[in-house]
Amino acid sequence: MALHKAVLYRNLPKILTNQSRHASLVPGEPDGPSIKTSSIPGPKSQKLIQELGKIQQSGSVAMFCDYDKSIGNYMVDVDDNVFLDVYSQIASIPVGYNHPGVLKLLTDPHNMRTIANRPALGVMPGADWPDKLKSVLLKVAPPGLDLVTTMMCGSCSNENAYKMMFMNYMKNQRGGEEFSQEDMDSCMMNKPPGAPKLSILSFKGAFHGRTLGVLSTTHSKAIHKLDVPAFDWPIASFPQYKYPLDQFKRENQQEDEKCLAEVEDLIVKYSKIAPVAGITIEPIQSEGGDNEASPEFFQKLQKITQKHGCNLLIDEVQTGCGSTGKMWCHEHFNLESPPDIVTFSKKMQLGGFYHSNQMMVQKAYRIFNTWLGDPGKLIILEGVVEAIKRDNLLQLVQDTGKVLRSGLDNLAQKYPQHIKDVRGRGTFLAFNAPNPAHRDRIVGNMKNEGVITAGCGETAIRLRPALIFQKHHADIFLGKLEKVLSQLK
Amino acid sequence: MALHKAVLYRNLPKILTNQSRHASLVPGEPDGPSIKTSSIPGPKSQKLIQELGKIQQSGSVAMFCDYDKSIGNYMVDVDDNVFLDVYSQIASIPVGYNHPGVLKLLTDPHNMRTIANRPALGVMPGADWPDKLKSVLLKVAPPGLDLVTTMMCGSCSNENAYKMMFMNYMKNQRGGEEFSQEDMDSCMMNKPPGAPKLSILSFKGAFHGRTLGVLSTTHSKAIHKLDVPAFDWPIASFPQYKYPLDQFKRENQQEDEKCLAEVEDLIVKYSKIAPVAGITIEPIQSEGGDNEASPEFFQKLQKITQKHGCNLLIDEVQTGCGSTGKMWCHEHFNLESPPDIVTFSKKMQLGGFYHSNQMMVQKAYRIFNTWLGDPGKLIILEGVVEAIKRDNLLQLVQDTGKVLRSGLDNLAQKYPQHIKDVRGRGTFLAFNAPNPAHRDRIVGNMKNEGVITAGCGETAIRLRPALIFQKHHADIFLGKLEKVLSQLK
Repeated sequence: MALHKAVLYRNLPKILTNQSRHASLVPGEPDGPSIKTSSIPGPKSQKLIQELGKIQQSGSVAMFCDYDKSIGNYMVDVDDNVFLDVYSQIASIPVGYNHPGVLKLLTDPHNMRTIANRPALGVMPGADWPDKLKSVLLKVAPPGLDLVTTMMCGSCSNENAYKMMFMNYMKNQRGGEEFSQEDMDSCMMNKPPGAPKLSILSFKGAFHGRTLGVLSTTHSKAIHKLDVPAFDWPIASFPQYKYPLDQFKRENQQEDEKCLAEVEDLIVKYSKIAPVAGITIEPIQSEGGDNEASPEFFQKLQKITQKHGCNLLIDEVQTGCGSTGKMWCHEHFNLESPPDIVTFSKKMQLGGFYHSNQMMVQKAYRIFNTWLGDPGKLIILEGVVEAIKRDNLLQLVQDTGKVLRSGLDNLAQKYPQHIKDVRGRGTFLAFNAPNPAHRDRIVGNMKNEGVITAGCGETAIRLRPALIFQKHHADIFLGKLEKVLSQLK
Repeated sequence: MALHKAVLYRNLPKILTNQSRHASLVPGEPDGPSIKTSSIPGPKSQKLIQELGKIQQSGSVAMFCDYDKSIGNYMVDVDDNVFLDVYSQIASIPVGYNHPGVLKLLTDPHNMRTIANRPALGVMPGADWPDKLKSVLLKVAPPGLDLVTTMMCGSCSNENAYKMMFMNYMKNQRGGEEFSQEDMDSCMMNKPPGAPKLSILSFKGAFHGRTLGVLSTTHSKAIHKLDVPAFDWPIASFPQYKYPLDQFKRENQQEDEKCLAEVEDLIVKYSKIAPVAGITIEPIQSEGGDNEASPEFFQKLQKITQKHGCNLLIDEVQTGCGSTGKMWCHEHFNLESPPDIVTFSKKMQLGGFYHSNQMMVQKAYRIFNTWLGDPGKLIILEGVVEAIKRDNLLQLVQDTGKVLRSGLDNLAQKYPQHIKDVRGRGTFLAFNAPNPAHRDRIVGNMKNEGVITAGCGETAIRLRPALIFQKHHADIFLGKLEKVLSQLK
């Protein structure tokens, strides 16, 4: 069936230019959501949640899904409810469910053997690995960053990127000298100078992952951090803007300046405690509430890192891979030079980071682990990148984004008691409810209407559709949202 | 071809009981290694290493491989050299290359869609997820541990297992009280009491991964740790035994007692600095040099953790999944009760940890990330577990292990100037060379003879064959080793 669909699809190359209201990029999508059960999760999901609860903590599970039936932007659950998915598995599904291009690649015998025989990529990679890195990962690299290291997930991508910043910082400190015997002996016992007192500067509201290093730079929600020891590293304020942006230009500019001054103060303060080897920042703080900062903020932040000899890491785990209308969100910022490191995961299917030549670690086995990523995931990404290019998905994201944005702006004007502060880029959009309970009610009611969205931060609702989200999907979403808002008390 | 082989294979159920010298468990294996190039890496590998070096640090790459041609215990490189693989991609290939049972599962349309549509398992798992956890992962669970949490790799498995130990420790400290406002506020700024000063006790020579939390408990090689900040956590001595064990019983027993006393001293000392929430230990220190400790050592260590209210984590990332002749190495230790947590990865294909009921975290989103493992990897593990059961691979490991062990003992007697201190369990075996350079020469010469082994620690050579390594493979290995040793100067 998968192959049949793929063939069908290839016979319709003009689908985008000659688009009827329901001509979906992924064939076979239903016309809209449909809800069969009186409550969600439905009875079959509830039973499975109980079953899972006997094996592991299942309190976060919303429902169980049928991924054989799910297609394109539509997710089907085990109770046969059909949802328009505007959350995409925490922003990690790039071209929808069962994309024919991806399924086709998975039937290829060489690709199947690549999945069956996952090698230790740092020791014995497969013959086509350099070519795949070039033809897939480097084909969509951020401008100016030609080197790439692959990992497994977002947390370990950031962890290893931090290590690269520490190593680069110490390389500069050491001025070309080799490691001393004291370095080598002391690091084995977790002591300086070999394990130096250095830090990564992060921002309030940031999310960079959940393993112990990156968790020390995550400050989005207490539940992520409670009871886990953390490094004493500097934490600066992230701009908190007033909306609409064009009415509060001066105030928001002052907010930028205040936060940048705090960054510089912290760098100076920590130079005596644990010098700042690098700054980590999201182009849009995602888990923390879809908090945005201006291009000027990022430009000036980069200048500060250069002035103080810190490295700059842009964490594009959630923002990367096209959903802001550019492949990488920081491309919107017109930085004078590329950031030192850009991390990715989620929609990219495997984790990793692009980095500049200067960041290259000179010795082997320093940034290393058994698998160093997964060639099987690069096969899926290959299908994703092909679809992005062939179907001009970045343009589609911009076009659909405009429809969503203006629809949300209208709803915010019509229902100011329910939603406000519409913001974002491309289809990576968000708005606020007046309070957390109100927000949760909107998300819940949307689910009952057959639309999956999600909260972030205190009061925000975030949109994370796949890149194949088209105008007619946006119309359905906006119609359902208006229905929910109009019925809210 | 894959399917054809699978069918062929299923027609030969008596292959094990009616075994000719060359009847391999995976059909299609060559009769032995064959080396075509005058040096290794060969010219094609060398070219690819150069090419990869333009994209990333490639100093650790030994050769490039053809995973379409590799089969069973034999790895074929891009220069058509055929190696008997006694290292298995850093101990991560459980049933050899292109196992027909695994390939067959990958042709199943449902499984293919499972790979194409990786969900956020903590939010919207697929319909068959609880069943897969039960029929695959829990089917091979360590005795007494009925709960399992899945992750991606060894490092993040240990990171999250440490978090679980911190959370359990604090739950006990808190005595059922809810988090205080101070807990919630302080943790957001990385400060106690919310981000408490707690520690994990680890051992000299240990390897538990490379992200910042677990790297603070890794002490195998300086190159893994240099320039990376670490937590100031207690580090105890791991027993260093004299060989042969039966000649040095008293000395080794004293060594156990000395190390255990050190553990207890450190727990007391750190109770005032950063109380020990958990102890992490490998059943055999693998990267650190295949250092073993006695069952009595582990039994007494467990008693110490119980006495002081610390949790005990057994890290089976390298030792787990059968290669010691039991599914889990700690099953050799006859512990009085199960350890609190057992982590896995590598041969298990996905990461994760088994744990006891008491360790279950009560609130959602505390042990959590976007993917929480990968159902696609569980498909491969399903094929692995099927093969282990059907072909009685744990018994095979014990049988082949005896052949290897007695062969190595003979060679150690014959060439005492080259190898000594043969040790290990099942096929998870190792021996020492007199010094690092000598060790590297043996590993290099074995490679030139078409056999892949690897070093660990200072002077050890470790054997990490797949579980399908049979007597005739052991004979080839021992023959090549004798040839190399006899020609060494």
